Parts: sequence; C-alpha cells; structure tokens
Amino acid sequence: MEGQDRQDRGAGALSTLPAPIETDALVIGAGPVGLFQAFQLGLLEIPCHIVDALPAAGGQCVQLYGDKPIYDIPGIPATTGHGLATALLEQLAPLKPSFHFEQQVASLERQPDQRLLLRTSKGTGFLAKTVFIAAGVGAFVPKRIALEDIQRFEGAALFYHPESLERFDGQAVVVNGGDDAALATALALVGRARQVTLVHRRDGFQADEGLVARMRAAVAEGSLRFAVGQPTAFDGKALQIATPDAQTLSLPLDALIACLGISPRLGPIADWGLDLVRKQIPVDTERFQTRESGVFAVGDINTYPGKKKLIVCGFHEATLAAWGATEIVFPGKAVPLQYTTTSTRLHQLLGVG
Amino acid sequence: MEGQDRQDRGAGALSTLPAPIETDALVIGAGPVGLFQAFQLGLLEIPCHIVDALPAAGGQCVQLYGDKPIYDIPGIPATTGHGLATALLEQLAPLKPSFHFEQQVASLERQPDQRLLLRTSKGTGFLAKTVFIAAGVGAFVPKRIALEDIQRFEGAALFYHPESLERFDGQAVVVNGGDDAALATALALVGRARQVTLVHRRDGFQADEGLVARMRAAVAEGSLRFAVGQPTAFDGKALQIATPDAQTLSLPLDALIACLGISPRLGPIADWGLDLVRKQIPVDTERFQTRESGVFAVGDINTYPGKKKLIVCGFHEATLAAWGATEIVFPGKAVPLQYTTTSTRLHQLLGVG
Repeated sequence: MEGQDRQDRGAGALSTLPAPIETDALVIGAGPVGLFQAFQLGLLEIPCHIVDALPAAGGQCVQLYGDKPIYDIPGIPATTGHGLATALLEQLAPLKPSFHFEQQVASLERQPDQRLLLRTSKGTGFLAKTVFIAAGVGAFVPKRIALEDIQRFEGAALFYHPESLERFDGQAVVVNGGDDAALATALALVGRARQVTLVHRRDGFQADEGLVARMRAAVAEGSLRFAVGQPTAFDGKALQIATPDAQTLSLPLDALIACLGISPRLGPIADWGLDLVRKQIPVDTERFQTRESGVFAVGDINTYPGKKKLIVCGFHEATLAAWGATEIVFPGKAVPLQYTTTSTRLHQLLGVG
Repeated sequence: MEGQDRQDRGAGALSTLPAPIETDALVIGAGPVGLFQAFQLGLLEIPCHIVDALPAAGGQCVQLYGDKPIYDIPGIPATTGHGLATALLEQLAPLKPSFHFEQQVASLERQPDQRLLLRTSKGTGFLAKTVFIAAGVGAFVPKRIALEDIQRFEGAALFYHPESLERFDGQAVVVNGGDDAALATALALVGRARQVTLVHRRDGFQADEGLVARMRAAVAEGSLRFAVGQPTAFDGKALQIATPDAQTLSLPLDALIACLGISPRLGPIADWGLDLVRKQIPVDTERFQTRESGVFAVGDINTYPGKKKLIVCGFHEATLAAWGATEIVFPGKAVPLQYTTTSTRLHQLLGVG
C-alpha cells in the first residue's frame, strides 16, 4: 500500500516523508470502541495514538446517530451518539492519547524488528508495537460524483461537504444533492453567493420537511435556482447535466459543492493480508488478535463465532485486546488485574482521589 | 441438592412445595451483570425471573463497594456501586422482570422435557427453559460462628446481621464481632436492650475510628460491656468464651447477635455438575453456555481463555448469552439483530419514543 500513500502525496514525496512517530500502540478509528480501546490501553499504561478519517472523535456513532437515542449501553438508560462519544472522551481525557484527525491509515508494513510501520493519507507515520483496528464499517468519506477524473478539481472548483461557506461569497455556486446537508448548504449560500443553483436527480427530496419547504419558497421567490438532472461532465467552469427529458443543460459556475452523503469505506485495510471474511477481520476471542501478531481488531469490523455488531461487545473486545497488547509491550512481565475502585496506581493515572 | 432444600424447609416439606413458576429464563444473581442479563433478555422478548440471596439488587457491587468509586464502566467517567446498580435497574425497569430476593437457588435438575427445575432456599420453584448463572463469587451470606450445631439457635437466640433491633428491647444481648457492623449494632442497642456486651477476639477493631471512639466511651461510662475472647460454646442461654489469658468466661444472655462479616459462598452451584475449574464455571465464548445446554454462566463466575473479572466483560457475556437463549426459547426462528436507535419494536418494549 506504500504505492497509494505516495500517490496521495504526489510523486517523489517518499524521500520527504517525516520520520514516523514511535508508539506502543496505534488505534485506528475514534468511534466509541476506539475511544474505549485507548482508555483500556491507558489503564494498562500503554500510551497510544489514535487516527481517524473524520475531523473529530465519535465515528459512525456521531455521523449516523449523533442526535438519535441509544438505550442499550449498560448503565446508561438513555443517551445519543453525541452523548456517548462525549462521555467516552471525558473518561479518556486524563490518559491523554494523541489524536490525528482527517486522515486514513493507508499502509501497514511489518518491520524487521517486528514493529508495524503505518502511514496515513496525510503522510503521518507511526512505528507501533501494537495496532488496534477499530474502524467500524470503514472510514466515513463523502460520496464522490461519479465522473472520471473529477478528483482533480477537488479543493479548487469542487468541494465535498465544506465545513465553512465563506470562500463562496460572491460566487456562482452549484450544489449537487438532495438530502438535508445539500438543502441546508444551498439555503445557507443564498444571500452570500452571487448565484445558487441546486441540482438533484429528481424533483423530490429525502430531507427534513421544513428544509424542503424553505427550499421551495426560495425557488419560488427566485433567490435559489433548482435544476433536475444527473451530472454528465465537469470541466471546472461548468457542470453538464442530463435532464429527465433527455436534454443536456450546462450550468456555468465558480464552484461545485457536492453533498451526496457520507458513506463508509473499508479502504486500504482490505489489502493488509488479514484474510477478510465478508469485509470483516477474523479474530480470536482470547485477545481479539488478527492473524497478524500485534494487530488486533475490535468492534464492528471484526468477526468471530457468536459476533454481534453491538457497542457493548466492542467494549469487551477492546478490553481483552488491551490485555493482549501487554504481552507484546511488556514481554515477560505479569501485569496484575487492578480495579479502578481500589488501585491507587489507577487513581493516579485517572487523576482522581 | 433436593436434600438440602428439604432440610431448609424442615422434614416433610417436599409434598407441600408450591408449583414451580414456568418461565423462559431464570437469572441467578441480581448484581450488575445479572441485571444487564435481564435487560438483554427483555430486548429479545424473553421474560425472566431473577433470584438473589440479598434483600435487594446490586450484588457484590453494592455489598463491597456501594459508595466506592468505579471509573471503568464505558461511557460513565465516574460512578459508585450504588450508582451503577441504580442506573441498571432504571434501564431494566420498562422490561419488568420479577425479582425474588433473600433466597438462594438450592437445586437445579433437568426435567424429561429438557426444561430445568430449580428450587430456592425459600421453596420457590422455577421451571425454566434457560438459566443464567450470574452469581459472581457466590451468594453473599453472613459468616457463621464456628461452633458445632449452632445453627439450631438461629432465629431464636442467635441472629446474624439483624435488619431491625426492636425485638431485642429490654433483653440481655451479646454482640460478637469487631467491624463497623458489630460496633454500630452494639451502640444502637445501648439504651434499648437491658444489657449489651460486645465480644471480640482481640482488644482492637477493624472499624471506623469514630465508631471505635464512641464504643470506648460507652464502655468507659458503663453503658456497654466489652469482653475479649473467642466463643467456645453456646447453649442458647449463655455464651462461653475463651479469654486471651486462657480463662473461660460465661456470658448469660437472651440473644446473641453475630456480625462477623458477609462473605460470598458459591453454595449449591458447586454441585450442579458444571465441571468447575477453581470455583469458576467453564463456558464457550460464542454463547457463554456451560456444558449443560440452556445453562449459561456470565460475569465473575465463569471462565474461558482470556477471561478477566471485569464488569465490562460480564456485560458482553450477558449479551451473547441472551442471544444463545433465543435458539432455545424460539427454536427454528431467526431472530434479527435490532438496534435501540432505530427499532420501533425495541422502543415499544422500552416504553420510549
């Protein structure tokens, strides 16, 4: 996978890659299970780094059900994806893990000294004694517009789910999509962009009813244009769309914003030789270790007899995986099981009592 | 074990045993893992009964660290034994399990129709399709005075950790023990009993310093007597003790109260043919089922490769055990995995949304 990494950074980047960060443990994925993985590692005094493709912690839990209720976390009668992620971050905070956001781990390679060298899509390197894949159903990445070579416009005339809209002030903008994010983005641009056109494949929306009403009102009053069609070509200056009545429409623009949803992609993990079974990584149930020594897989991404894709199971898996790591990080040392109720050492680590 | 059950209830009780309660599931133990076991069964629409030796839910968690902090329950940065038990009970409440307190399951017998017949020390019977042993390190029972045949005085002239002290009004009472409970009981009796004598094996206490000071003050002012010695005989009317200087002292009394601590005893479970390994019940890691079909063991009482005695692991075990039970309770039916975030059926069961 070193090839893809190089491609991400442009040719010749290899020689300028920064020296990798040496660490006892690297956690891939900052969803609930990845966060608890870091917590259990911390209790065992194994410092760790955490990489996630998203700009913040929480993973699928926040992306897919941030404000939706969760009732089956033991001892928490009701919470939400956001609530759970926030609580796990608070619990983890005293153990001070290092987060590396907005990058995907692109390559994983065993080194002669048995450590694992990993590189992210941003070029960050890690030389880790143990790796914990807590990547859920994969990294959450925006769905791309399905046009050949369109990625060359990304960041210049093409933007996926932009965090801020300031850069579009005074521009002619086309927003492609039909969900809440697309409608909210188009409406937010009205008044600040010179011209806003919403493009969706059909005259119907899978979105909040209030947003749809506001969008229809903006179209009626002429502050927002709406075109039905599928993108067929993009040259950075205009988007061609095919309308339902087989016409081709050309929409000149300064910027194209696509809000086609965020979907998980397993990505490079599939190529790490972990013998995936239906996109899941097989693990044992003693340490939740993959076929590669020192590489553990926890949460929705793993599989074993009896596996259920439930957060409560991921918490257990992360716990035993952390214990599995002690055998590699502290070879020959018998690490005693300590309880947070009574252990003064654990209280010290957690900054309590 | 039917024998012990009969003995508990007196000879001839067998013929008058009440008809057993028919149930899909019986959970033994109302500690955190037993409570979550009932929750997961409830989500799978398997109604259950829960038996515990203590007078209330919470188990070891409340008995041993009710007010002590717990920091490693995922998503709960800090709680206590009480706090966790309360939260789990709240979470479980909508699923309405039936609790049976202050009784130990004494016998477990396979019936010809494959169901399991269980009897408690109070004679309550259950005819269950599945049984979940969540008994931790055993039932918490008061430590007995180590004198032969002394149990025949229990409830008449001998009491262990009595809930209420009213019955001792005006009596001559000897309290045996040296911990918080012993001192608090002796002090609470001063003024209501005619005479109170505290007996402890040494002139030193493993107890709260304030309680010890109050006890010493009561002895100094003469409202409480204190004798150092070990019980050597008891006839219901006087307690003989051997003093450190090898004297025998006879203490006439109306009632003897022993507060020698509450300690866990595995009890009859050890005799159920479950092939215990160092007092743990071996289980598989797919369903956490014992060698007996339909009998599951979860939490601190079970063992398997990698086992750690942590509550977080028990929660996972209970989850997969509940799924294991669906195969027995709903034979031939494929039960789909539903999420509390989205399933309207689960929302109905939980009385939310």
